[in-house]
Amino acid sequence: MNGSETIVYRKLTSLERTIMSTSAEITFGNRDDRKLVERGLTFSPKFDDHGLIVAIAQDADTNEVLMVAYMNEESLRRTLEIGEAVYFSRSRQEIWHKGATSGHTQIVEKILTDCDQDALVMKVRQQGPGCCHAGYRSCFYRNIQESGDPVTLEQEIEDQSYDPDKVYS
Amino acid sequence: MNGSETIVYRKLTSLERTIMSTSAEITFGNRDDRKLVERGLTFSPKFDDHGLIVAIAQDADTNEVLMVAYMNEESLRRTLEIGEAVYFSRSRQEIWHKGATSGHTQIVEKILTDCDQDALVMKVRQQGPGCCHAGYRSCFYRNIQESGDPVTLEQEIEDQSYDPDKVYS
Repeated sequence: MNGSETIVYRKLTSLERTIMSTSAEITFGNRDDRKLVERGLTFSPKFDDHGLIVAIAQDADTNEVLMVAYMNEESLRRTLEIGEAVYFSRSRQEIWHKGATSGHTQIVEKILTDCDQDALVMKVRQQGPGCCHAGYRSCFYRNIQESGDPVTLEQEIEDQSYDPDKVYS
Repeated sequence: MNGSETIVYRKLTSLERTIMSTSAEITFGNRDDRKLVERGLTFSPKFDDHGLIVAIAQDADTNEVLMVAYMNEESLRRTLEIGEAVYFSRSRQEIWHKGATSGHTQIVEKILTDCDQDALVMKVRQQGPGCCHAGYRSCFYRNIQESGDPVTLEQEIEDQSYDPDKVYS
């Protein structure tokens, strides 16, 4: 197993227990048959021309969308291995174990995939006060308020749940 | 206004009322200042190197994620103009007014954007029995069940809510 230096030992989640019940290597199905991809029960994720798949983290209790990020094959495997969200940072072009700096990890309870298997929804338990580097519990803290020239936003979540300057300083 | 032939006349949603309260042209802010993009109240969406932004449709009542798709600038503007989800189909490379064929339109109640404004979450009221062309109320009808060689899925949503062969035949 690659990158085992990032593994955190703690109580296993249900996803981890499921995953660790088999010792087989983690591999993905092929995508040769579109019907099987859509109707079958083999996980055959589609990575785009940058080798990435979009992954949405959703609060396991409230269903609030917390953040949207991307995974490459390696980060998806590591997510499955450690039961915590591991993304691929497009800006830094590197594997990104969410919360490695802030402690705000995301314990993954369940991963859903869609009809054509080119998107993932993860039901997570966000650790710490929030997932967003801007200090909010969710990255989606603003909504479109008024159309016009230009379109304006308003706060959807009024209060920051932590001070990002203290966490990321 | 381009493409007015697709407009459906009906009772206005709150988003539409907000948007139509101004007659100004729909334009987006620039992204010169990263801090303003993250903290400001100007909508400055980031389109990727294919000119697309990811858009997640979430049930306005239950917060269930219904589907994940993409918008280009034109489809985002048309979504704001008509108050229904208008995507850009990557496979067909064309503007895609969701529900134009099936009648399963998505009335957009609210649009959230994230910290770096490169993702959208739309709170929608799905019309008809479901959003997925495979017959389910949500495209995310399967979850990862077991790791291994290859990883397997199980049904998350057991029953189709309509027969896609009848709707799309």
